[in-house]
Amino acid sequence: MTIQKPTFNTADTVARVRGYLEGLQARIISALEDIEGPQSQGGARFRSDAWRRESGSALQGDGITRILEGGRVFERAGCGFSHVSGPRLPPSATQHRPELAGAPFEAMGVSLVFHPRNPYVPTVHMNVRMIAAGTGAAGTGAAGTDAAGQAGQGPICWFGGGMDLTPYYGFDEDAVHFHRACRDALAPFGEGLYPRFKTWCDEYFYLKHRNEQRGVGGIFFDDFAELGFEQSLAMTQSVGDAFLGAYLPIVQRRMHMGHGEREREFQLYRRGRYVEFNLVWDRGTHFGLQSGGRTESILLSMPPLAAWSYQREPQPGSPEALLTERFLQRRDWI
Amino acid sequence: MTIQKPTFNTADTVARVRGYLEGLQARIISALEDIEGPQSQGGARFRSDAWRRESGSALQGDGITRILEGGRVFERAGCGFSHVSGPRLPPSATQHRPELAGAPFEAMGVSLVFHPRNPYVPTVHMNVRMIAAGTGAAGTGAAGTDAAGQAGQGPICWFGGGMDLTPYYGFDEDAVHFHRACRDALAPFGEGLYPRFKTWCDEYFYLKHRNEQRGVGGIFFDDFAELGFEQSLAMTQSVGDAFLGAYLPIVQRRMHMGHGEREREFQLYRRGRYVEFNLVWDRGTHFGLQSGGRTESILLSMPPLAAWSYQREPQPGSPEALLTERFLQRRDWI
Repeated sequence: MTIQKPTFNTADTVARVRGYLEGLQARIISALEDIEGPQSQGGARFRSDAWRRESGSALQGDGITRILEGGRVFERAGCGFSHVSGPRLPPSATQHRPELAGAPFEAMGVSLVFHPRNPYVPTVHMNVRMIAAGTGAAGTGAAGTDAAGQAGQGPICWFGGGMDLTPYYGFDEDAVHFHRACRDALAPFGEGLYPRFKTWCDEYFYLKHRNEQRGVGGIFFDDFAELGFEQSLAMTQSVGDAFLGAYLPIVQRRMHMGHGEREREFQLYRRGRYVEFNLVWDRGTHFGLQSGGRTESILLSMPPLAAWSYQREPQPGSPEALLTERFLQRRDWI
Repeated sequence: MTIQKPTFNTADTVARVRGYLEGLQARIISALEDIEGPQSQGGARFRSDAWRRESGSALQGDGITRILEGGRVFERAGCGFSHVSGPRLPPSATQHRPELAGAPFEAMGVSLVFHPRNPYVPTVHMNVRMIAAGTGAAGTGAAGTDAAGQAGQGPICWFGGGMDLTPYYGFDEDAVHFHRACRDALAPFGEGLYPRFKTWCDEYFYLKHRNEQRGVGGIFFDDFAELGFEQSLAMTQSVGDAFLGAYLPIVQRRMHMGHGEREREFQLYRRGRYVEFNLVWDRGTHFGLQSGGRTESILLSMPPLAAWSYQREPQPGSPEALLTERFLQRRDWI
C-alpha cells in the first residue's frame, strides 16, 4: 500500500474535516429524532454531552457525545464525535505502519451504534475517522520529534471506517438494501472497493469463539490512503453520507411490526453476542478501555439490556434458527 | 518462588485431585438446591451437562457443567468442573514459568459464579485449580517432548484459585464475614497467606477503565506451589471447602429483603460492570475465548440480564452511591 504524503495546509484541513464530521453527527441525530417523532407523543431526544480532556492525560482533545435512551423507536442510540491527539501513536494503530510507532498523532471521527426497541429492527454501527501522524499532527508540539522521518513534509494521513448491520430477525430485503447502499457509496471511487471492504467487514465482525458473524456485514476499511488525500477523504465522506439512506428505510419498514415476549427475549439474548464482540474482539473498544480512553464514550456501543442463557438452541426451522443459518453467514447479498 | 518437583505417582494424584474437585462441585450444587427449596414450591434444580472434547482440538478433556437458570433465589448460577490437557501450555499460563512455555500440560478445576435474583444478595465467584506441566502431564503422550528439561522427574504442579464477593448493596457485616472465612481457610497454612492473597485479589479484580474494584474482594492466588505439593493441595482444598460457609450465611441473611424497581435496575446496571470485567480484563475468560476454549462453559460467569446506561450517577448519600464510595474500595475488612 502506497502511503501518500499530503500537501495540504494542516490547520485548514483539520478544520475542514472536523466541520464535515460535526455536520454529519448533527444530520444523523436530527434524522433519528424525526423518527422518534414529536416529544408530545413520546418521541425521545438526544442528550448532548460536550467533553474536553486537557493535556496531562495520555490523550487530550474534545468531543460531543450524543445519546438517546429509552426512546419510542430506539432503546439506546449513541453517536459520538471526538477529536483527540497524543504524543505517541499506540502500537495497535500502527500495525501496518511500523515506521510511525510512537509518532505524535491526531485522530478524529464519528462513531455510532443504535439499538432499536423493536426486535425486527436491526442494530447498526457506523464509523468514519481520519488519523494523522508525524510532524504537523497536533501532538507534535509536545514531542517535537518526527518518528516518521518526514521532517518538514507534514503528517501522514489515513482514513478508516465503515458500517455494518446486525439483525435479530433476518430479512433478505434489508440485507440487500444495506449492501447496495454501501456499494453505491464506494462505486465512484473504484469498482474493486466494495468487494474488498465487504470481505474485510466479514472478517472483522466475526465472533471466533462462536464461529459466527456479528450480523449481515456491510463494509469496513482501515489504513486507507491509496487514492491520495483528497479522494480518500471524499470516499470516507461518501460512506458517512450514505449511512442514513442505508439504515433508515429499514427502520421505517420494521418499526411497527408486532412482536411479543418471544421476540423480545431473543433480541436480548442476541444482544449478548454484541457485547461479547465489542468487549472481546473489537480492537478499538478493547484498546480504548485498556489504554485510558473515555470509558462512557467508548461504551456507547453497549446495548441498554442484554441477556445470557446456557446453550440456548432455537427450534429447527424457526425464524430464530434462520438467523444463524442464513443471515450470520458470509454471503454475497447483492 | 521455588518450584517443587512433586514425587507423587502421577495417575494416582490426578485421580485423587479429580475426586476432590468432583465432590466439591457436588456438595456446592446440593447446598444451593437446598436454598432454592423444594421443587414443589418453585425451587429450581441444576441441569447437568457432561461434555467431552476429543483429541484433534487444541484442548482435549472432559467436564461437567452444572447450571441453574430462572431460580427462586438464583437467577443464574453456573458451576463447572473441567479436566483438560494439551500439547503446549499457553503463554498466558506461563508468565512466571518461561521454562515451561510450550510444554505439555494438564489442568483441572472447579469454577463458579452465582447471580442471585434479590439485589441485596451479592454475586459470588470461586475457583480452585491445579495445573501440571512437563513430562508426565497427560499431554505428554501426544508431544513426547519435555520442554521443561525435567525428563524422568515427572511434571511440575501448581495451584490457583480464590473467591471474591460482589455486592450491589453493601453491608459491612457481609464483607467482614466473607473475609474472615477466607482468612480462616488459609490460617493453618501460614500467617502471611491471607494478607498476601487478599491484596492479590484486590489487584486482580480491578476495573482499570472505571478505576473501581469489582466488589469487596476476597482472596486470589496463582502459580502456588511454595508449600510443597501436599500442603499446597491441602491449602487449595481448604479454600474450596470454605466456600459454602463464606457465602451461604450471607445469602440466607439477604434473600428475603424486600426490594423494588429501583434496586432491580441498579442491580442490572452493576451487573454490566461484571460483564465488563470478565470480558475485558479476566485473563482466563479472555484467553479461553480467544484460544478455542468451550465458550458456553467459559461464559457461565455471565449474568442472566445486564444493563448499560450513560453516566448513571447515583444520588449523593444514597445506598447506590455508598456502594462505590465505601464498598468498591480496597479496604481491610477484618
